[in-house]
Amino acid sequence: MKNKNGNTVPEKNIERLLLYRRILANLRREKKTAVFSHQLALMSDASPAQVRRDFMLIGYFGSPVRGYDIDQLIQSINEFVDAQEVQKVTLVGVGHLGRAILNYFQGRSDKLAITAAFDRNPEKVGRVLHGIHCYPTERIQEIVKAEGIDVAIITVPESEAQDVADRLVQAGIRGILNYAPIKLNLPPEIFVDNRDMLLAVEKIAFFARRRIRKESVS
Amino acid sequence: MKNKNGNTVPEKNIERLLLYRRILANLRREKKTAVFSHQLALMSDASPAQVRRDFMLIGYFGSPVRGYDIDQLIQSINEFVDAQEVQKVTLVGVGHLGRAILNYFQGRSDKLAITAAFDRNPEKVGRVLHGIHCYPTERIQEIVKAEGIDVAIITVPESEAQDVADRLVQAGIRGILNYAPIKLNLPPEIFVDNRDMLLAVEKIAFFARRRIRKESVS
Repeated sequence: MKNKNGNTVPEKNIERLLLYRRILANLRREKKTAVFSHQLALMSDASPAQVRRDFMLIGYFGSPVRGYDIDQLIQSINEFVDAQEVQKVTLVGVGHLGRAILNYFQGRSDKLAITAAFDRNPEKVGRVLHGIHCYPTERIQEIVKAEGIDVAIITVPESEAQDVADRLVQAGIRGILNYAPIKLNLPPEIFVDNRDMLLAVEKIAFFARRRIRKESVS
Repeated sequence: MKNKNGNTVPEKNIERLLLYRRILANLRREKKTAVFSHQLALMSDASPAQVRRDFMLIGYFGSPVRGYDIDQLIQSINEFVDAQEVQKVTLVGVGHLGRAILNYFQGRSDKLAITAAFDRNPEKVGRVLHGIHCYPTERIQEIVKAEGIDVAIITVPESEAQDVADRLVQAGIRGILNYAPIKLNLPPEIFVDNRDMLLAVEKIAFFARRRIRKESVS
């Protein structure tokens, strides 16, 4: 589903580091100050050895006696995965899914900010939705370039997704989170992650069913 | 992110089989009748050897000369991954994300059907949204049991997600697609897939940025 050309850090490591950071932030909110690799492993469905390798990758080593210092660890992950300045994101397609994402993003990240949305519906264009200005799709190239946006979220219907993706790439976008259920034709240097909700439910349905069968024969 | 206890078929194989099926259905719509493993590999970002292994897993072997027969292949995947009867799904949390999913599901699968939705907002309860009746959250256990639903999609805010998940498990749900950005505490036999939109964007932002840096120095 993804393009991996030229990435020296594997996607899976980054996914886990981002998940650890989320878990660590929750622990911090619960007033905890230290955590052991086996605890983090349990909370992230990784192995303790994997957790330790991931932290070695970012140059962080914990104390075998007291565990990892949570604040220091969050800081190390931040330095590894975050941009120094806020990274700008755009969202194209302000239907229910688009609005859910705009709403969800509000105030949730201080390193990623959705700064412009696009839609082709004249009723949405010109409005401010969940704090974000909505422009017409035709202005993607102009606005994305002017704002210096490099990440895009596509939440348009599948019939419009390829056209939107082409406009985004022409505008200089380097990474796309695609919720339209089609495979986009894009240059290999664009990093794409496809999120197909039906595929996700189909997978869960498969394993949910197998468990029921398993129980019924045991 | 997922619980793998007791699954004899690895998740990754199922994910790929579901993706091949999606691609094959698109090829069929374009009036194509056969496909080679290297073509499918290219379209699914797998290797040709992986594609062939996945099809061996479901007992399907193609012709080295004419490729795989698309109709037969879809049929074989269907037999492997689908339930014999329609599998029922419920969705809890009919906000923007919930509505996007209800809308997206309409008429898209003949093997998976969302048959009930739940929300705690009295303004939504009792209404039919995108063709689905919305019940109060308190009735999860009663309705899910009565309908024989075994898969759930959680689209409530994170503060409500654990309570909803507990109700769903008590009602007999075996698989959960969780869009709330928290790790749910659930019995190990429940299959859970967490979809955190911010984590997804954070990952893309990381790789998008690295590519820009790479270009700027080359």
